[in-house]
Amino acid sequence: MLDHAKRRTVELQSRMKEAGINLALFTDESSIAYLAGFWGYLGIEFGRPTFLILRPEGEPTVITPLMESEMVSAMTWVSDIRPWEDFGQNNWTRVLNETLGSAPEKIWVESMSLPAVVRAFLDERYPSVPLHDISQILGAQRMIKAPEEIDVMRQAGRIAGDMMRAAEGSLKEGLPEYESALAVINAGTRAAAGFLTAKGWEAFVSPMIHNLQILQSGSDTSMVHRRASVKTYRRGDPVYFCFCNMAQFKQYKLGFDRMFHIGEVGDEAARVQQAAIDAQQAAIAAIRPGVLAEEIAFAANEVYRQRGYKTGYRTGRSIGVAYLEAPELKEGDKTILRPGMTFAVDGGISVDGSCGGRIGDSVVVTETGCDYLTDYPRRLLVV
Amino acid sequence: MLDHAKRRTVELQSRMKEAGINLALFTDESSIAYLAGFWGYLGIEFGRPTFLILRPEGEPTVITPLMESEMVSAMTWVSDIRPWEDFGQNNWTRVLNETLGSAPEKIWVESMSLPAVVRAFLDERYPSVPLHDISQILGAQRMIKAPEEIDVMRQAGRIAGDMMRAAEGSLKEGLPEYESALAVINAGTRAAAGFLTAKGWEAFVSPMIHNLQILQSGSDTSMVHRRASVKTYRRGDPVYFCFCNMAQFKQYKLGFDRMFHIGEVGDEAARVQQAAIDAQQAAIAAIRPGVLAEEIAFAANEVYRQRGYKTGYRTGRSIGVAYLEAPELKEGDKTILRPGMTFAVDGGISVDGSCGGRIGDSVVVTETGCDYLTDYPRRLLVV
Repeated sequence: MLDHAKRRTVELQSRMKEAGINLALFTDESSIAYLAGFWGYLGIEFGRPTFLILRPEGEPTVITPLMESEMVSAMTWVSDIRPWEDFGQNNWTRVLNETLGSAPEKIWVESMSLPAVVRAFLDERYPSVPLHDISQILGAQRMIKAPEEIDVMRQAGRIAGDMMRAAEGSLKEGLPEYESALAVINAGTRAAAGFLTAKGWEAFVSPMIHNLQILQSGSDTSMVHRRASVKTYRRGDPVYFCFCNMAQFKQYKLGFDRMFHIGEVGDEAARVQQAAIDAQQAAIAAIRPGVLAEEIAFAANEVYRQRGYKTGYRTGRSIGVAYLEAPELKEGDKTILRPGMTFAVDGGISVDGSCGGRIGDSVVVTETGCDYLTDYPRRLLVV
Repeated sequence: MLDHAKRRTVELQSRMKEAGINLALFTDESSIAYLAGFWGYLGIEFGRPTFLILRPEGEPTVITPLMESEMVSAMTWVSDIRPWEDFGQNNWTRVLNETLGSAPEKIWVESMSLPAVVRAFLDERYPSVPLHDISQILGAQRMIKAPEEIDVMRQAGRIAGDMMRAAEGSLKEGLPEYESALAVINAGTRAAAGFLTAKGWEAFVSPMIHNLQILQSGSDTSMVHRRASVKTYRRGDPVYFCFCNMAQFKQYKLGFDRMFHIGEVGDEAARVQQAAIDAQQAAIAAIRPGVLAEEIAFAANEVYRQRGYKTGYRTGRSIGVAYLEAPELKEGDKTILRPGMTFAVDGGISVDGSCGGRIGDSVVVTETGCDYLTDYPRRLLVV
């Protein structure tokens, strides 16, 4: 992993040189993971930022809370690690200031994810230094995944598959939603543990499946982002599991979701669900190198139209180390698909706030079409 | 809950009026929960912001993604809910713009947590409109908890206690760290479920314990923010569980942590742990109305000094709906303690990167001293 991270940093430095970018400041956990090979822990909830500073030439610098610096040193290939402390003179604003210098010409940052505390500091300390966005440069580099990244994403897919099997196995009348969510977390964590050792860099990678499970059942399936509650399942209930913010491994995040019906399914619900599956399958069948991203959306939208449903906003999004990457499979995105791109591809229909059909898988574009990264039956699932 | 949220909003409006604040924009999940009674779901990972807009008089406005608006309507007392859509004309920038008006004089925001996408929009749309920080105004209001808030925090404390019992019960030689973390999540979620019904507002509250568990064992206990890994426990290992980013219920967040030793404990480790406990207990004994926040830290620091250890940065922080609230129990904070303030109070020592002693509890200041919100033995714990 660390050799790959270093190679990616060298490539980005060369892109920075071409683009005339002299100073870049990365604050996003996924970007730091991609380039420096480590990821932060407490995150920004407690106000503690972590930085990777890159210039077109020379060694990168990592700035990290002192209490995490021992761990960071063990995880990253970067040798210039500058710890900061919560109290005393050596706070993060001072260390960052010393690293950036007193008068940088411009600073390139990740505009759309720059933590507010960092933005406030830059505004105050460098009021006349313009901030530019480096996200597109890094995003362009991340678009095509390397074989080692696809290997990790395949492992993430197997973990997600175990999560979905546990979800299906938990579906019984009278059981509360949260017990399904616990079954998912337990199964996913144990599956992830199977891909990890307690040695070297991997000793610092946690197998824990975390973040809040999206799960909705019964009439709540018309609400898109419900969380597991204490409500119990009844016969005929649809139950929807979306793992889009929790199916991840070594910072690679997949899209994956399925709808189940407990015991029986009504005619309309079955028709809606089948249309969602058929739309997703039409989209996936259209994926191959050379096709435009929006054409994948057109393939799905044609199915929705034929069946009399509204077309969706987006048929899919790129996946990787960030939750949302470019390109997107939607009207207007004319990116040409190339081997190594990875997508979450969804079918989704909501009817009258009463019923919905949904399915989602992750795929990688190959030389001739695409391969699934996630695998689970793609048909009406009555359990 | 909703009556309380409404009353809090009315109080804040009156504080805004006194301070001459005409327009406030809240984006922080915990502030929106405190004032409007609902909390968002996907959060900002996928780039979707939620807003609460408040003026000193009149009805507040909530701006929310369309797909969550059905749920939001069921959870909040606010009636003016304006949904936005991912595609088409009705995107969030347009809805926000219409709500703020074309030429606001000033906008008061939560500067230190304003999402980057929102900050970028405000800068572009209102380049000459100054942004001011409303956090201190809201923070001052939140400092003293109402009885109904303390009730929720007591429930959170009982959930946290069940989590710690499961942690202790999991400690066996040969078991991997992640199985302890799963035991904690399972026990905490089931305990939280016991405080919830599937009716009305509570139907939308998830009992799920989430976020990444802080857990470190063996020689890694010198690293402060490790996550549960695949490493297995050995006899004599210290194991540290910190629930500070996961012990929460209905958006109220506690601090709570314990150190255990498996089978046996060495003399130095025992001495260090006892010193941490004694420092924490000295701090807690000093808490009562009328005392300055920094005096609590002085009480703990005196114990560290007497035992020959370095004093800590902070003995405690305020707890509530945000992860970090004011005042803090540290040198320089001269806030006078008053009944209804709630704190996480910690004892913590790190020795030579090899060994550490730690303990943390949550308390509420009473008329005569303080009460524990978390409860678990406060002594050397060898299991």
